[in-house]
Amino acid sequence: LSGALKIAVAGLGTVGAGVLQLLERNGAVLRQRCGRDIRVTAVSARDRARDRGVNLRDVAWFDDAVAMAREADAEVVIELIGGSDGPARAVCEAAIGAGRHVVTANKALIAMHGTAIARMAEGAGVALGYEAAVAGGIPIIKALREGLAANNVTSLYGILNGTCNYILSAMRDSGREFADVLAEARTLGYAEADPGFDIDGVDAAHKLAILTSVAFGCEVDFDGVYIEGIRHVSAQDIAFATELGYRIKLLGIARRVDHGIEQRVHPCMVDEETPIAHVEGVFNAVVVEGDFVDSTVYQGRGAGAGPTASAVVADIVDIARGARIPTFAVPASALEKLPAAPMDRHRGAYYIRLMVVDRPGVFADVAAALRDEQVSMESILQRTRDPDGAVPVVMTTHDTEEAAMKRALARFAALDTVVEPPRMIRIESLMK
Amino acid sequence: LSGALKIAVAGLGTVGAGVLQLLERNGAVLRQRCGRDIRVTAVSARDRARDRGVNLRDVAWFDDAVAMAREADAEVVIELIGGSDGPARAVCEAAIGAGRHVVTANKALIAMHGTAIARMAEGAGVALGYEAAVAGGIPIIKALREGLAANNVTSLYGILNGTCNYILSAMRDSGREFADVLAEARTLGYAEADPGFDIDGVDAAHKLAILTSVAFGCEVDFDGVYIEGIRHVSAQDIAFATELGYRIKLLGIARRVDHGIEQRVHPCMVDEETPIAHVEGVFNAVVVEGDFVDSTVYQGRGAGAGPTASAVVADIVDIARGARIPTFAVPASALEKLPAAPMDRHRGAYYIRLMVVDRPGVFADVAAALRDEQVSMESILQRTRDPDGAVPVVMTTHDTEEAAMKRALARFAALDTVVEPPRMIRIESLMK
Repeated sequence: LSGALKIAVAGLGTVGAGVLQLLERNGAVLRQRCGRDIRVTAVSARDRARDRGVNLRDVAWFDDAVAMAREADAEVVIELIGGSDGPARAVCEAAIGAGRHVVTANKALIAMHGTAIARMAEGAGVALGYEAAVAGGIPIIKALREGLAANNVTSLYGILNGTCNYILSAMRDSGREFADVLAEARTLGYAEADPGFDIDGVDAAHKLAILTSVAFGCEVDFDGVYIEGIRHVSAQDIAFATELGYRIKLLGIARRVDHGIEQRVHPCMVDEETPIAHVEGVFNAVVVEGDFVDSTVYQGRGAGAGPTASAVVADIVDIARGARIPTFAVPASALEKLPAAPMDRHRGAYYIRLMVVDRPGVFADVAAALRDEQVSMESILQRTRDPDGAVPVVMTTHDTEEAAMKRALARFAALDTVVEPPRMIRIESLMK
Repeated sequence: LSGALKIAVAGLGTVGAGVLQLLERNGAVLRQRCGRDIRVTAVSARDRARDRGVNLRDVAWFDDAVAMAREADAEVVIELIGGSDGPARAVCEAAIGAGRHVVTANKALIAMHGTAIARMAEGAGVALGYEAAVAGGIPIIKALREGLAANNVTSLYGILNGTCNYILSAMRDSGREFADVLAEARTLGYAEADPGFDIDGVDAAHKLAILTSVAFGCEVDFDGVYIEGIRHVSAQDIAFATELGYRIKLLGIARRVDHGIEQRVHPCMVDEETPIAHVEGVFNAVVVEGDFVDSTVYQGRGAGAGPTASAVVADIVDIARGARIPTFAVPASALEKLPAAPMDRHRGAYYIRLMVVDRPGVFADVAAALRDEQVSMESILQRTRDPDGAVPVVMTTHDTEEAAMKRALARFAALDTVVEPPRMIRIESLMK
């Protein structure tokens, strides 16, 4: 391990620049911790002229990132281009093909093709690092793959998208509606111009699929994730959640159930006494429950140049120190193909809000629909009266099967007295 | 790595039995994750007859743990005897001397002799694992040493003793006094019969000294830790803390300052909006601030057979997988000897409570004492009136030097109108 570890970086956007700045600024301590230098020998980026705040004079520039991955004088290729296919994937495959280690921050790539790329890398005897793909600077992949390796994980869940958590926190703080807060988040730079990827839950689902694989030793199965975003969460639901002792969070949840692996991303009501209820703003948090360790919580910034660079370089440090751990905790060839548990068979409690005309008999109709679908009600409340307009009726259920709940919702929607589509948010019962 | 990894276990108390149970129960998943079996070949414990819930028929029993460490058919020796010297230390040194890896849960040993033992281990080319010595099942050593290895740590702090956190949480919930809650904690098994080690802050200081070394690359310096326990925290102070928007926690805090390393364990008032304010009961939490990653938080059970076994076996898994990381993140030979920053030079804000006779002129005396020591007051309040008895006067200061604060406290104590020794609790300004 005595020589410098040579690395080539594909993609010099915010994160790429952050990685280069970190390597330069913390070079001395990295040398001590790795027992060798980490040296950037090649980069590839569209714009050669932009000032990235680092000295790139002695570095080879490549116009073609794939050519760099194949030909650069480097043992490690860092992929920071992004996207689940196209050049990002080509760079990783070319690097592995040429016997080079790969470190990537690309969650879409690992969520869509993680199993295949890991098998390729392990077949070639090289490392595939992707700590930065999940939860930014929080070393959650390392925690799952190594720190908690003695446990059978029973469940894991987390706040995996900072944009959604920022919006939900701001809605709760201000009492404002989703669209209003989203517009503000865009102005502040907490949401992209095209925010669908975040607010529709796709980004959180990418991360969840990766975590699931590491935690449960199964193939990465993004298609098996049930996904529901936060567009339908209203100020009214947030106010009712508070009244009921809950906070609304977009969670990614994975657990082993009788019929396979359940992976789901959707808004949840969580008890305000749980640790995750207090994770506000752009922060991410992951809770892992293991059979021996019980519950552990990991929290930090889920995005940004600094935290992401911290995770990318942690993977480089592992490689520089000679650590070789199976990509997803067990050899990629041994990853199980586990069936995705159908969401219809999910069991849990539910919060339902109906907008009803305020007249006698409404409760009887609602109760009859629940009885017919054998859904057991825990509470029902109607706070406001308005004989001329629509008023909210809110109820919570005991644990029930999702399919039954959906049938009950269809019955509610068909009632004359229900004047808006019913709103449903799942209540998650979590460890305090 | 194809053969089984053979291990010898010294000490079969609660944690030792937990380790053996874990290895038996999770053998299949451990084999997958390590690519080889982990096999217990030898044990040493006083009582051979006790049922530990595992099959020990094919295991060699040693009466002398040191002889086992030297002679057993094992590559790894697990030290679970406890104590900073005596047999525990002898076992570790004998194992290293015989070229065997060592894994220990012994915080006192690592806090007192960590640097020397790490140098011995690295000189012999063997691993020294001590994840279980700090914060139970939370993989905080791995997070600091590997997951955050790209960062210069700027500060770290944490709730490192579950007994103290349980007592402070229970005092706050119930409004009861320390002695009362401590007695209850003993009955419930949350406090030892001789609780001094916990409530006087020594246990937390052991853990802090270890964390400091990993985070800052310096020799383990337990003697450099300023230690103050929780015996003097009263129900009244907890009530005032709540009124001021704080919670009282026993924290261990380490940071690099101009004149060396500051390490301190003492009760702190922390803003109720910080993540650590919500860590209640027997849970532990550690916050690490790094120059790139910003703030990350790690939370979980800090004690107990299951969580401790999880950490011990995580170290064994690392060894089984062939990982060799410097014990304290940098080679032990390169650990710096950094001077301990004297507590007198600590700067921070303070909460002071005086019990005074309720008559005109008291505030003027107090203000004069602060002026004479150049301590700048932030707020002062006297809620109750009692012309015949003593009433509390509570104040908070702006940032000031500890030495000046102590001189002001001596002046308060000397005032005729102050009828009890002044109480002081430091206010920590932490990231939200």
